[in-house]
Amino acid sequence: MKVAVLFSGGKDSALTSILLEPFFEIELVTFGYGHPETHEVAEKAAEALGFPHRAVSFQEDVLEEALRMLLSCGYPKNALNYVHQCALEILAQENKFVADGTKREDRVPMMTPNEVRSLEDRFCVHYIRPLAGYGSKAINILASSYLEFEMLPSEDRPASDFEVGLRQALEARCGPETVTKIFPAHHIHSRVIRRKGFEQKNQR
Amino acid sequence: MKVAVLFSGGKDSALTSILLEPFFEIELVTFGYGHPETHEVAEKAAEALGFPHRAVSFQEDVLEEALRMLLSCGYPKNALNYVHQCALEILAQENKFVADGTKREDRVPMMTPNEVRSLEDRFCVHYIRPLAGYGSKAINILASSYLEFEMLPSEDRPASDFEVGLRQALEARCGPETVTKIFPAHHIHSRVIRRKGFEQKNQR
Repeated sequence: MKVAVLFSGGKDSALTSILLEPFFEIELVTFGYGHPETHEVAEKAAEALGFPHRAVSFQEDVLEEALRMLLSCGYPKNALNYVHQCALEILAQENKFVADGTKREDRVPMMTPNEVRSLEDRFCVHYIRPLAGYGSKAINILASSYLEFEMLPSEDRPASDFEVGLRQALEARCGPETVTKIFPAHHIHSRVIRRKGFEQKNQR
Repeated sequence: MKVAVLFSGGKDSALTSILLEPFFEIELVTFGYGHPETHEVAEKAAEALGFPHRAVSFQEDVLEEALRMLLSCGYPKNALNYVHQCALEILAQENKFVADGTKREDRVPMMTPNEVRSLEDRFCVHYIRPLAGYGSKAINILASSYLEFEMLPSEDRPASDFEVGLRQALEARCGPETVTKIFPAHHIHSRVIRRKGFEQKNQR
């Protein structure tokens, strides 16, 4: 059974794929807004993990709608939920199992139980959240057992995730002041450097 | 890292332990109300799965409080939540990781986010729910891949789970009419018969 995993290159989506690996054939999929360089972080992380990886660009109207939401709301929640759901729906069109790295304590992006049911029913897909049953501390213990990763501020574009991409697109459109008005300051993302024990396993 | 998994002998707690197996050392633990024969179903299922298993009897006051809740509420939700939480607290006293087979769509037993945080903080424990991120259909697909199980009505005492045990204790105390008044009719439980591929793996 194959599962398509939404993958940013950060520790959570990396751990998600490691938890699923014994039970599914993994394909990592990274979504972006048409700038090929934003996929590079995820591509390198996927290579370090040893999983096949694919980059997908949203249609232009997804970014336009997300930017409209950012500017009209003044906060990122709705736009992040929107692009997350768009990505899952695109994956759901061609996969029976789709997964992401959203955690028990996450608030954004997060689908409501009704949205989950709607996604699964409309696309005949199973939506899996392996980290939904783990607290942040347990996730950090597991992630540290299997991954070497670093923590970097959003401004360094450390991951190919939805927030980093939206910050970048908003800055290009409206300037850095608008980004600091809408997005939280000092936001930190993780970036996977290495899968522990993976090089040795591959050299056997 | 060792995890203690609440185990009834049914497919959900069995699949829970299979999903955790690649990442943790598993110990299955079955709770009962002092009738050794109620552990037997879980013991046999644990043997079929190939995991170490331990049976624990609640102190008498846990059963008394649960029966009081059943009779005063007239429905099983509060009593089931109470014994579930008692079991997790007992496991949390001697384990760093505790897990159970509660699912995304489960309503009872189910801890609120505040109760989960309280359990984890009071006992310095990580509470893991591997099935929290899976819908029932995905769970059935996975369970059928790894397990042979049968579905039986509660009256046949098919599993060593909290509901089956409480039904039994209530019947002994107040008679079968009280059980049918308080518990839902036609309730079905699963019982694990065999782990697929496990015998071959062990014979290698």
